[in-house]
Amino acid sequence: MSFYDQLKFDANGLIPAIIQDQKTGRVLMFAWMNRASLEKTVATGKTHFWSRSRQKFWMKGESSGHTQAVKAIEFDCDGDVLLIQVEQIGAACHEGYRSCFFRAVQKDGTSYKIMEPQLKTPEDIYGEKR
Amino acid sequence: MSFYDQLKFDANGLIPAIIQDQKTGRVLMFAWMNRASLEKTVATGKTHFWSRSRQKFWMKGESSGHTQAVKAIEFDCDGDVLLIQVEQIGAACHEGYRSCFFRAVQKDGTSYKIMEPQLKTPEDIYGEKR
Repeated sequence: MSFYDQLKFDANGLIPAIIQDQKTGRVLMFAWMNRASLEKTVATGKTHFWSRSRQKFWMKGESSGHTQAVKAIEFDCDGDVLLIQVEQIGAACHEGYRSCFFRAVQKDGTSYKIMEPQLKTPEDIYGEKR
Repeated sequence: MSFYDQLKFDANGLIPAIIQDQKTGRVLMFAWMNRASLEKTVATGKTHFWSRSRQKFWMKGESSGHTQAVKAIEFDCDGDVLLIQVEQIGAACHEGYRSCFFRAVQKDGTSYKIMEPQLKTPEDIYGEKR
């Protein structure tokens, strides 16, 4: 049986995808896929998403070069979330951090701190004028 | 500045939360929080969620005993996803697996396989009559 039959896309035809670095276990980012972007991800071995804000299909790294090679695709008990293990080239975050989850709440329960080094600036990645 | 000011809840007042086992790095589950459940999570040190299907506040483990002790709360660049590091008691998945992501797509790109042992049956966890 195809794993697609186990998946439930939401009312907008989307399913959330958690992207994890297979080697380090670091959760890198979170984005949405539709069926076509998932099929493209399976077919090419590179992650493809659906941008809800831009209503546009995109390949991770298409402008930055920071692509993600797919190592495994897992899905949850309810079939409504994907967990994709990848090998990440460069920074997953468009702000130049390895992971998008670079900020953590501190012990006081309200303040927060940046917890990892910024590998590149957005200007390094996308060019100054963007 | 409070980290709450950095967060963007969606049109329904919800934010997705990825739950990760701090020790092993295994992604355990994915669920939704509203501001009240996040505040409760911060205040009690146990994860609390909002059930979209039941329209109900719930504490993870309230019926199963499989609670999650919060070790860290991280949030992404856009402030619209939480990554919560926990210490998991027992099985995170209501189907008795350690992680909800117990199934993985196989090399053919369509078939799938259960990749981890079922620690308990749902009957073990919730009782036979449920």
